[in-house]
Amino acid sequence: MNFLDEKIQKDGIVKEGNVLKVDSFLNHQMDIDLFDKIGEEFKHRFADKNINKILTVEASGIGIACIVARHFNVPVVFAKKSKSINIEGEMYMAEVESFTHKCKNQVIVSKKFLTSDDHVLIIDDFLANGCALQGLISIVNEAGAFIEGIGIVIEKGFQVGGQVIRNLGYHLESLAIVESMDASTGVIKFRHQ
Amino acid sequence: MNFLDEKIQKDGIVKEGNVLKVDSFLNHQMDIDLFDKIGEEFKHRFADKNINKILTVEASGIGIACIVARHFNVPVVFAKKSKSINIEGEMYMAEVESFTHKCKNQVIVSKKFLTSDDHVLIIDDFLANGCALQGLISIVNEAGAFIEGIGIVIEKGFQVGGQVIRNLGYHLESLAIVESMDASTGVIKFRHQ
Repeated sequence: MNFLDEKIQKDGIVKEGNVLKVDSFLNHQMDIDLFDKIGEEFKHRFADKNINKILTVEASGIGIACIVARHFNVPVVFAKKSKSINIEGEMYMAEVESFTHKCKNQVIVSKKFLTSDDHVLIIDDFLANGCALQGLISIVNEAGAFIEGIGIVIEKGFQVGGQVIRNLGYHLESLAIVESMDASTGVIKFRHQ
Repeated sequence: MNFLDEKIQKDGIVKEGNVLKVDSFLNHQMDIDLFDKIGEEFKHRFADKNINKILTVEASGIGIACIVARHFNVPVVFAKKSKSINIEGEMYMAEVESFTHKCKNQVIVSKKFLTSDDHVLIIDDFLANGCALQGLISIVNEAGAFIEGIGIVIEKGFQVGGQVIRNLGYHLESLAIVESMDASTGVIKFRHQ
């Protein structure tokens, strides 16, 4: 187990319906020291990549992306999830719906902040079915930018999102991959990487 | 002019209707080096305060709050704006509406992450009418926590939010206070602090 598996084991709470609550340190209250270790680890895993921009999506990806960005010394752009478009000027937009119809999102990025010169690292907190992530990839491709890698904090290995992204040939690094969770016992099994 | 006034003067864009666009460095694309200077400045201005937690509100407050938190060595909690409540368990909730009816927000924080032991620094990117900020203050008070200070990156000094907060006796520090803006000339006047 790495530092993140250990943290999830210690402070994560498993709920019925394959829900993993990590709101005490990741996506409501945020442990900045932990985020710093996450940044260090992504820098290590993407050490050979020439990255000039980090892309994430609101809301819970933003904090992680900003701390990670310090390790790469690059700016962050966050995509907005919105039905009412309030970004002035031209924008990239992706509407994505999951095959289970459990998620439907519109993600938007201003064209000013993503161009064909950009070498992008996509960062997000969770990867399950990968609905939002597919939207981000679509936007980067639309911009003609290059995806150097995708860094995810927690992947639910028993849902399709991660496999789809790997099948597509992207360099995906998930710091913790949950293989299974049991709400009755609280046991979380991680994939050995 | 301080470093932030200069940055706004250089890269901010004034639009009709008292709109100040700072999305190239503050609330869409995010300049992490600038955020670090902002963190340093808040640490300086709240140096005598005993702060153990930073509270902000999604989405654009989160990145700034996380980088600021490194200077205080404390965790961040972000309030969620939501109509559909999806935080399990008990939560603090504030519904706030501006006198101009231009903003109506529900802000929510889980009770687990804000208690009467907390000494809170509230951080946000913008202060105009102060609608969201009033909700955050309401939540901190409901929790019985203590507000050590409020740190704002850009205050629109010609709108009521800042004056209301100062009248209420809170220690409010706005790093840049815009007194007036002219969309036809692009001129931005700052309050001398």
